[in-house]
Amino acid sequence: MIKEAVLHMPLSQYAYATSENAITIRLRTAKDDVTYVGTFYGDRVAYEEPIPVTEVSMEKCATDDLFDYYEANINTDLTRVCYYFKIFDGKDIYFYYSRGFTDNMTAHRTEYFQYPFIRREEVVNIPEWAYESVMYHIFPDSFANGNRTIDIKEKTSIETPDGISINRLGGTLRGIIENLDYIKGLGANLIYLNPIFAANSYHKYDTIDYFKIDPCFGTDDDFKELVCKVHENGMHIILDGVFNHCGPDFFAFKDVLKNGEDSKYCHWFYNLKFPIEYKDPPNYECFAYVKEMPKLNTSDPEVRDYICKVGRYWIEEFGIDGWRLDVANEVDHDTWRAFRKAVLSAKSDAFLIAEIWEDADVWLKGDQFHSAMNYTFTYLCRDFFAGNKISAAEFDQQMQKALIRYPRPVSNAQMNFLDSHDVPRFLSLCEGNRKKLSLAIFYLMMAPGIPSVFYGDECFIEGVTESKYRSPMAWDKSDNDFSNDISKWSSVRKRCDALKLGDYKGLYVDESGLYIFKRSYDGKNAYVVINNSDSQIDIKLYDICHLKGDFTNMITGEKIEGILTLEAYSGGVFE
Amino acid sequence: MIKEAVLHMPLSQYAYATSENAITIRLRTAKDDVTYVGTFYGDRVAYEEPIPVTEVSMEKCATDDLFDYYEANINTDLTRVCYYFKIFDGKDIYFYYSRGFTDNMTAHRTEYFQYPFIRREEVVNIPEWAYESVMYHIFPDSFANGNRTIDIKEKTSIETPDGISINRLGGTLRGIIENLDYIKGLGANLIYLNPIFAANSYHKYDTIDYFKIDPCFGTDDDFKELVCKVHENGMHIILDGVFNHCGPDFFAFKDVLKNGEDSKYCHWFYNLKFPIEYKDPPNYECFAYVKEMPKLNTSDPEVRDYICKVGRYWIEEFGIDGWRLDVANEVDHDTWRAFRKAVLSAKSDAFLIAEIWEDADVWLKGDQFHSAMNYTFTYLCRDFFAGNKISAAEFDQQMQKALIRYPRPVSNAQMNFLDSHDVPRFLSLCEGNRKKLSLAIFYLMMAPGIPSVFYGDECFIEGVTESKYRSPMAWDKSDNDFSNDISKWSSVRKRCDALKLGDYKGLYVDESGLYIFKRSYDGKNAYVVINNSDSQIDIKLYDICHLKGDFTNMITGEKIEGILTLEAYSGGVFE
Repeated sequence: MIKEAVLHMPLSQYAYATSENAITIRLRTAKDDVTYVGTFYGDRVAYEEPIPVTEVSMEKCATDDLFDYYEANINTDLTRVCYYFKIFDGKDIYFYYSRGFTDNMTAHRTEYFQYPFIRREEVVNIPEWAYESVMYHIFPDSFANGNRTIDIKEKTSIETPDGISINRLGGTLRGIIENLDYIKGLGANLIYLNPIFAANSYHKYDTIDYFKIDPCFGTDDDFKELVCKVHENGMHIILDGVFNHCGPDFFAFKDVLKNGEDSKYCHWFYNLKFPIEYKDPPNYECFAYVKEMPKLNTSDPEVRDYICKVGRYWIEEFGIDGWRLDVANEVDHDTWRAFRKAVLSAKSDAFLIAEIWEDADVWLKGDQFHSAMNYTFTYLCRDFFAGNKISAAEFDQQMQKALIRYPRPVSNAQMNFLDSHDVPRFLSLCEGNRKKLSLAIFYLMMAPGIPSVFYGDECFIEGVTESKYRSPMAWDKSDNDFSNDISKWSSVRKRCDALKLGDYKGLYVDESGLYIFKRSYDGKNAYVVINNSDSQIDIKLYDICHLKGDFTNMITGEKIEGILTLEAYSGGVFE
Repeated sequence: MIKEAVLHMPLSQYAYATSENAITIRLRTAKDDVTYVGTFYGDRVAYEEPIPVTEVSMEKCATDDLFDYYEANINTDLTRVCYYFKIFDGKDIYFYYSRGFTDNMTAHRTEYFQYPFIRREEVVNIPEWAYESVMYHIFPDSFANGNRTIDIKEKTSIETPDGISINRLGGTLRGIIENLDYIKGLGANLIYLNPIFAANSYHKYDTIDYFKIDPCFGTDDDFKELVCKVHENGMHIILDGVFNHCGPDFFAFKDVLKNGEDSKYCHWFYNLKFPIEYKDPPNYECFAYVKEMPKLNTSDPEVRDYICKVGRYWIEEFGIDGWRLDVANEVDHDTWRAFRKAVLSAKSDAFLIAEIWEDADVWLKGDQFHSAMNYTFTYLCRDFFAGNKISAAEFDQQMQKALIRYPRPVSNAQMNFLDSHDVPRFLSLCEGNRKKLSLAIFYLMMAPGIPSVFYGDECFIEGVTESKYRSPMAWDKSDNDFSNDISKWSSVRKRCDALKLGDYKGLYVDESGLYIFKRSYDGKNAYVVINNSDSQIDIKLYDICHLKGDFTNMITGEKIEGILTLEAYSGGVFE
């Protein structure tokens, strides 16, 4: 056995509570290295000495390139648990506890691993509606200003206060309202809007006023109407909160620019130097080195209160359902803790998504965000579906590695997407191959995590540069549209708990690009077959992964009898 | 190379900031498995593409039974860093980044490991005075009620409200005041008192009133005088905060017992069930199953505010320097975050130690505690010094494993001790062998972490059961005392930065129990030689660990010329 591969970390994704009476315990081993893993657990404050322990067999829950991961779901009335592991490699038995390995487990309970107290405050807690969601992500300036239209009747550019002319495409909140039926038709029930507060640029990431709808987009009343109609349609809506930095015309920064060191808002900004050099590069901290985006000193009590006030305001006054938080990994943790409390006190089931491109574990411990934008997912889909740079085997392994980073209920709440307002359109990375995009979106709908479709992916918007991938919505579609497929797939997802809540196991991969995986929840399974190749395939599920029984295509309702045929770059889901 | 052994975790003990311009990056590999480890880092928001990176060679900073740990201390003006690793095993080069291994590092910066922003709020931050500390830990009832005496003039037991008679030994605050010179004489400059607030039992862990000195121990004025004299002597004092649970006569629980479900304090307790069964075992949550210690509902806003108020009160009104927090791992994290803020707002350099017996990483991230009681240290010393159950090699490996659990400045602030009010006296585990105890205390003074001597260890108090290991202080010492040695060793420690702040490297171990290690800080070294055997040894440092040059005994000031002689169960420290 490769002892060096064995890993367990208390109070982490390797040991978490899903209720006050249920904990999940995981252990990592080297791949294909052991034949049995079990955990022994007991009451860490039991009167008996040595304490009575119960053995639970652990099941392999994931496997990647180097490791297998084992898991036990323990239901218990105990509030205080200690535990250790037993591993058998076919030859020797090893016990694993806080000091490492021992042949003979005689250590005192205080040297076992500890789950000190299954506190109700620290049970994984994601709003239930999040799991029911299919997201439609809208870049407001580009989406619509009328029913199935985006046409600029007034002007195509606006002047910023410092005389810069900003191109705008003319999208409005009214445009979103008029196309709610369209969004709903795709099967989406959660709308995420890029920033809509008053700001200098067309993208609105340089906020002027956090309490005001940008006049390009509409009015407070428009937004109230939008939220109201979203809710009437059984949908949810979240906004983009840009609190790492503000824009140059934010009142506090304007005051600093005007009054320098004498400004009473100096402490609102992070590491200002005087005199302020408002030039490229600036001499103060910004988002990247963008002088128009000065970094807010979020841990300052006044600033933190201000941010929390904004967080509550749009919930209390307009009824939004949550926030996506921009550049979340550059803001201090305590601000997010305060923000979470403020927001959840206004709406207890509000949903919070962080923009964090990397492993977001540190932010997903239950004290800050529920979810993060899952760029790892994006990159893997690029490499497998768009670029054919990795095999199905590597895709499966990397996807499983990404999922095991978090407790399962957290992984299942990540925001998955193929592209966003910050990266090239997926279709461009597919070199325009629409079938590849379509297959990737099918996978998105079948994978663990909340699927998010960026406006226009359904009608094949392309673009590698910012101005292109934020192109106006291609309303003039004729046949350039696979909305119907998306609608079918999201519909399957929404009625299948295994897809929304289940675990994820690779069943079969081959060099041609055939990939079969299983999603399981509460004893029910969904089998997903992905043909990521340029040829039709005809397979028998029994032959390639020993799946017995009758299968039904969950999209068409057809029974699969014998041979399953899948066209090039297509997939199916079966129960 | 054993790829499975390689480990890095962003924003953890593997990547932390020691200032706004300095981060430490660590990587784990299998033991003796590689010949070079380096890290490449760059500005993750650089305009250039691909970004320029700088290579830094990493040094082996620790080694345990299975792993080597490499470390680089990077000084940088960058606030946003991304990085990856290069590993050479003598044959192949591997690059290691967020996806795992690659032969050829072509990934985009967004797939490197990320240090998103070196925020000032999240730099490791321990009060400087903590590193200067040698702690004397007093169980107040047992220590003294006069100068070098503990004699009970009044009565030997008190009646609890429910008629239970509690033995008491009679220690008082006045007794501590009158022996401050004694404590100081040991070299101690930080006093930790077990609970002193009004409580039912002699140990005072069942608080009646968090705002009142227990009348057995004295008055508010006595305590004010004690704190004042502690400070006059250049010492610090911390109190025991017992907030996981209260006592049965705490006003809120009394009200609950009296009024049941109608009590307005029901929400002050965790998971009460009605009618309350105040019997063994109780039907409500307690500390363990002790009905006299009902568990407080710390996340309730009223309770949390109350606890924070207590935290501030004893600082603002009496000037204490910090808290040791009882059963810290069973209280919710947000309460500790609030407590930390409350306490630090009253005294910015207050010191917070958690009672957590296991790996306390989760609580030592900078948002809750500075330090934890290091029972891992205790157990290892038991096994090596008292029980001879593990070899010097295993002791060294396990100690290094324990140290690498945290950032170095955090490891150096852990509270180390051989025994406490909760475990058998170390001397009893040595079966009365005083030399073994003495050697272990010598090690305690040389090891990374704040050394804590439990009252009476210096005069050989023994005891395996609670009433024995909390025996009255053995003031009637005659020659039964090695205070002078402790005083010399603590004096060496206090004047040697390498011992207080330095890293820790094992240099030599052998089967006889000889153990040599090095503490280093800022280019200066202290070499510690431990002879944990029952025979005198005569060694040449050059012969056994190639240490060249002249050495001076830091305790005696003597130069070591040629042979170094160490008696059975003794140690020396050399520079």
